[in-house]
Amino acid sequence: MFSHFFKKWGFRKETSIHLDYASATPVSPEVAFAMKPYFSDTWANPSALYRSAVKAREAIDRARTDIGRMLRIRPADVTFTSGGTESNNLALFGMVDFLKAQGRTYADMEIVSTRMEHPSVLGALNVLRERGVVVKFIQVSEDGLVDSVHLKSLLSNRTVLVTLAYANSEIGVVQDIKKITRTVRACATEYNVVIRVHVDASQAPLWLPCEMDMLGVDLMTLDAGKCYGPKGVGVLALRHGVSLVPQLHGGGQERGLRSTTENVPGIVGCAYALVSAQKAWRVRSADAIELRDYMFKILQKEIPDIMVNGSRTERIANNVNISIRGVDTEFAVIALDAKHISASTRSACGSTEQSGSHVVYEISHDTERAQSTLRFTLGLDTKKDEIEYAVKILSTHVQKMRTFKPSVAYEEFDTT
Amino acid sequence: MFSHFFKKWGFRKETSIHLDYASATPVSPEVAFAMKPYFSDTWANPSALYRSAVKAREAIDRARTDIGRMLRIRPADVTFTSGGTESNNLALFGMVDFLKAQGRTYADMEIVSTRMEHPSVLGALNVLRERGVVVKFIQVSEDGLVDSVHLKSLLSNRTVLVTLAYANSEIGVVQDIKKITRTVRACATEYNVVIRVHVDASQAPLWLPCEMDMLGVDLMTLDAGKCYGPKGVGVLALRHGVSLVPQLHGGGQERGLRSTTENVPGIVGCAYALVSAQKAWRVRSADAIELRDYMFKILQKEIPDIMVNGSRTERIANNVNISIRGVDTEFAVIALDAKHISASTRSACGSTEQSGSHVVYEISHDTERAQSTLRFTLGLDTKKDEIEYAVKILSTHVQKMRTFKPSVAYEEFDTT
Repeated sequence: MFSHFFKKWGFRKETSIHLDYASATPVSPEVAFAMKPYFSDTWANPSALYRSAVKAREAIDRARTDIGRMLRIRPADVTFTSGGTESNNLALFGMVDFLKAQGRTYADMEIVSTRMEHPSVLGALNVLRERGVVVKFIQVSEDGLVDSVHLKSLLSNRTVLVTLAYANSEIGVVQDIKKITRTVRACATEYNVVIRVHVDASQAPLWLPCEMDMLGVDLMTLDAGKCYGPKGVGVLALRHGVSLVPQLHGGGQERGLRSTTENVPGIVGCAYALVSAQKAWRVRSADAIELRDYMFKILQKEIPDIMVNGSRTERIANNVNISIRGVDTEFAVIALDAKHISASTRSACGSTEQSGSHVVYEISHDTERAQSTLRFTLGLDTKKDEIEYAVKILSTHVQKMRTFKPSVAYEEFDTT
Repeated sequence: MFSHFFKKWGFRKETSIHLDYASATPVSPEVAFAMKPYFSDTWANPSALYRSAVKAREAIDRARTDIGRMLRIRPADVTFTSGGTESNNLALFGMVDFLKAQGRTYADMEIVSTRMEHPSVLGALNVLRERGVVVKFIQVSEDGLVDSVHLKSLLSNRTVLVTLAYANSEIGVVQDIKKITRTVRACATEYNVVIRVHVDASQAPLWLPCEMDMLGVDLMTLDAGKCYGPKGVGVLALRHGVSLVPQLHGGGQERGLRSTTENVPGIVGCAYALVSAQKAWRVRSADAIELRDYMFKILQKEIPDIMVNGSRTERIANNVNISIRGVDTEFAVIALDAKHISASTRSACGSTEQSGSHVVYEISHDTERAQSTLRFTLGLDTKKDEIEYAVKILSTHVQKMRTFKPSVAYEEFDTT
């Protein structure tokens, strides 16, 4: 069945199959083209007064307007950051610091989240907890979906923020944000308090709708580097009226919320990438879902005992995450790489951890399963035959590993 | 004398004379070339395990090694940030938070600085002061040089940090950092305490030596966007053994000191720009000093009553900063812009302030002088005839303004 691919790929050693698009994406040619004039032509500091600076300022304003329109918020509520991590940190610390400045004590603030968030959210929550903020974690189902009854039970008149990933970066589970925000609003009304909802939508723009009014969220994190835009640029978008305390102090750029000379080409590229991503998410998503489900199907055929991590239906279009019990999946990633296939065990941002996927552990409470995860995330150009080839190589590797002899492990690296 | 330039420029309307290189620089062709492969070719997340990610990781490692060698510190002590503002914020908050975590109270910490620092230092100091940290400001001379006797008198056994700009971003005054660090070391030894010295060297790499061991500093801020590298990337360099608490929490990148997916092209461009800048600073500086002094000379000839802001000798090679009493210099900037000449009144990062230059006020305590500043900063390609033309246009403008009639003001904008 796969022989023609072996032949094909046997002759095309330098061609690689990338299946880790959730950890990074290339800058698309269109985005690169949009950014180009702002490196060496329109390069002035946008805060200066002269014409070339005004041109740079206008480029930023256009980028801000485009993103505002896309998210259906006011342009002035779009803040450019250095990426998803900074956006998440700014949302959490900015919110708590703002309430603190209003006279509220840390101990009087509660934040509700899950244990399967991205390290940039969990890291910030850890620091806030050290300061005395109460952090409560919602139970999630085996499918990775938040339990809204439990969420409701955690909300109180001290809750200030609910923070969740729109689509989980590891297992791709998509939360029902609309339902969650409705639950939160209802409780907030009942308790007569303000509870903000922040979503980390870093993985979303290519595959899911991101209009903030439709989702009902107050703060949204976006990252250009995850949707064919430049690395090092992101957005923290606010619903009008949400106040934060800045975390970078200086020249007062971004309406004082994030001081520093604006990264003009990055901002232009960020807007171009995000807006392009959102434009065709529906069609793109439908196509990718077909490929993704095909991959699950042939994976289950070739390696019948794989466990799918996260809901099969409430799942971002490009994410395939499985556990293969008894298999060292880090080694599998390296074996796949020897055949020019890129995959990952979990989020690249967590890859220094030694204890497996914290996300898969949270949904399964199964250490072995959490330690044998493998994530494939499809990109815009991923082809059916690439998926077939990757699955074939993986299943061959798994078979070899399960009948392990030391000599076999070395053969694996024979790429000739 | 200037007629041939009028003629020349009369025919080249689109050519502009940029004299505001301290606020931003273009990305040089060489830097752009160095960055190019990392946007759309070697674009993987450097934290991943496969080959293309390792290539990205190696590019970052090379950049770190190159900067480490240039500054004469260990590569592991080079942290990439989103620019000078973040580096300054990380230095100050990171240091104070570290001591706080060690059990020291805010009130038991003193930081010594000057009132003429960049807004990113003054802004951070303001926040630290609100937390209870004691901030003391060193007196500066009319030349803008710190008074080392006064500095010595401010140091105590509670001083934890001295933070200063190597070259002031507005008036270009270069502090004698070696002498300052010697003074600080002597006091630290006397009091048997550790006092760290941080310099903001954002303006320095093109014109001044930056070896950290030679200067004797513990922390150094650098900014790629001020020396022909990309905007949105900078460095905070540490002497080995200096500990900071991270200000961005997440995936643990940059040895935990700055989590976020690395901006690979930005980092590569940053290293290329900084290393190129440092390579030839001496020759470059000598050439620029000649041009700069020529500009001062013809400025004084054309507008005899200008006041030079900052020392004429202890001054970065490319900085010309003057006050023209009785002249609205913001209007002068706009009038110069009408003739395609870019200049600024002060640091672009402070341009939302309405009260004039805080730096010139600090050295002169003269509000009028602080409100009539004009900064010209030369770049690598600045030519003598460009300077002559700019001075001519400025002096014509000043003459017109001093014999002001409303009609003249409008003529000014007639660029035909």
